[in-house]
Amino acid sequence: MITMRKILAVDAGGTTTRAVVLDLSGNALGYGRAGSGNPTASGIDDAAAAIQAAAARALGAERPTDPSSSALVALAGAQSIRFRDLLAEHLAPYGFTGTVTLESDLAGTFFSGTHRQHGYALIAGTGAVAARISHGSLEHVSGGIGWLLGDTGSGFWIGHHVARAVIAALDGQGPNTALSGLLLEQLAIERSAERERGRPRNLEQTMNALYALRPVELARFAPLAFQAAGDVVAQEILASAASALAGLLEAVHDPDTGGPVVLGGSVAAAGLRAAPEIFVPPLTAAAHGAPLISVADGMVGAAVMALRQVGTAVDAELFSRLRNDIAQLAHQYMQHERHLP
Amino acid sequence: MITMRKILAVDAGGTTTRAVVLDLSGNALGYGRAGSGNPTASGIDDAAAAIQAAAARALGAERPTDPSSSALVALAGAQSIRFRDLLAEHLAPYGFTGTVTLESDLAGTFFSGTHRQHGYALIAGTGAVAARISHGSLEHVSGGIGWLLGDTGSGFWIGHHVARAVIAALDGQGPNTALSGLLLEQLAIERSAERERGRPRNLEQTMNALYALRPVELARFAPLAFQAAGDVVAQEILASAASALAGLLEAVHDPDTGGPVVLGGSVAAAGLRAAPEIFVPPLTAAAHGAPLISVADGMVGAAVMALRQVGTAVDAELFSRLRNDIAQLAHQYMQHERHLP
Repeated sequence: MITMRKILAVDAGGTTTRAVVLDLSGNALGYGRAGSGNPTASGIDDAAAAIQAAAARALGAERPTDPSSSALVALAGAQSIRFRDLLAEHLAPYGFTGTVTLESDLAGTFFSGTHRQHGYALIAGTGAVAARISHGSLEHVSGGIGWLLGDTGSGFWIGHHVARAVIAALDGQGPNTALSGLLLEQLAIERSAERERGRPRNLEQTMNALYALRPVELARFAPLAFQAAGDVVAQEILASAASALAGLLEAVHDPDTGGPVVLGGSVAAAGLRAAPEIFVPPLTAAAHGAPLISVADGMVGAAVMALRQVGTAVDAELFSRLRNDIAQLAHQYMQHERHLP
Repeated sequence: MITMRKILAVDAGGTTTRAVVLDLSGNALGYGRAGSGNPTASGIDDAAAAIQAAAARALGAERPTDPSSSALVALAGAQSIRFRDLLAEHLAPYGFTGTVTLESDLAGTFFSGTHRQHGYALIAGTGAVAARISHGSLEHVSGGIGWLLGDTGSGFWIGHHVARAVIAALDGQGPNTALSGLLLEQLAIERSAERERGRPRNLEQTMNALYALRPVELARFAPLAFQAAGDVVAQEILASAASALAGLLEAVHDPDTGGPVVLGGSVAAAGLRAAPEIFVPPLTAAAHGAPLISVADGMVGAAVMALRQVGTAVDAELFSRLRNDIAQLAHQYMQHERHLP
């Protein structure tokens, strides 16, 4: 009997978990998705279940039969032994009885953009964090401080400043801004000039709606700043965000370490796509001449790390093939998912 | 039998509640203090109990015997009928069976600084709020939006920015600042240059200590900015705060309304005392030539409003006498309190 060794690579995000099954030569055999696989965001049980579900979908009916079949999961936050052990229990029934390794989402992002072993990664999503990668591993990390004490320039920070700017405008403390109409529309509050107890009615309604959210949920208003990018107030928020993200890259910069700068996360993606004139110049300056590479997620990077862990060399050619194959599998999966009941 | 009509005036703060008993001629007869009398900060039962305790201490053994003896309470936040009714129940056993009126802390602050009927009040304490007073009542209010969405320049805002500046410095994202030493000392964290998992140990310790607090408790670090007022980072935080507070005053300014600007709250007091070169110029500009008057609390103002409510005219002379008498009673009370077991 021929034993079949497979590798599982997982990019466990706070919203979506992606999984790819590979063979030792780096052929991507299957792709699957599930909900949040981040234990900090969802609790360890739900996160482990989501990773299991994504793996099951990527496998289909097949099972690896070689007991050394291993798994690598890239995710944000602290990497606990407890979560790793729980994951091992969840993946063993699917044939992944070998090593289960947890890696940083920063590494997942970096290796989604390059096969090189040196460079920089910046993730600007709900939070903001950057790393210098040297000899294939994280050498220096800055940011990732959380919404209250850090993460300047992140989705939370932008959404928070959108909310504060609208409140200030409604309260007569700040300039009028196109963000007000967009925010009130998103909150389903009808515009009104009426005042109640010495204050505009819209102000009280907006405060009530926003204070009913958990603070970190203010991140959902970040897209409004990009929608209103022509507005002076929105532009100032985005310019401050871009400058803070460039500062985060500078904080991990080392003149002796070259290599590309890989950008991940929703804010980086929106910044490059919807407001390049604001985001590209400061990030280019902070890259000190290195190329900027934007990636949609950390899936390819998780696959690269999983392959390297089992001794498969990932050069420029295999990297390029992996990226194309995974993109194609993801596309097929999404087409299929769209037609599910 | 001669019935004895008295008036109770209360300044119910988030930390301390003050009460004064007066006769109809404006003689201050007694003074008492208790803990937080703010229903938003402490819940309505504890707040009512604190106000009752302060009133009982101000009364001593005497009781008003005229059933129309009334009470007026100045406090921050929404004024609910439910809280007023609960207060009436708490004060009736002490002889205050007449009307119980709730008034804004902004009015309490304003009338603690002047007998005039027109002008402006700015409270910069944990929060920040301003009002224009016209014909003796609040005509326009700005600010008071709360820590997450507003209150720029408040004690929370300053403390939050102190914490963020220290975290940024420890993380290599921001400039070094004298605030770091002060904050680590206050948190009882020993300074260390060691790094753990790619990050400075002090960074992780500080993050853990700060995230263990409720966000609004970051206000306790505001005094560090005044202590470190010579430091560039602290100076920038204070200058932004002073400018935001001046902006709040501007937001309620009306060129047709003259009258003094009365400043209350711990940040206003510390700003004028410890950093006048930073706070006085922008506030003076925002006062448009009117005098700046600083008050320690809203006690005198509550007494002024309580007297006016029962028809006693409070002119410059009575105002001045009230202020002196209440200050003297408060001083005696504190001397006495210091010697309590």
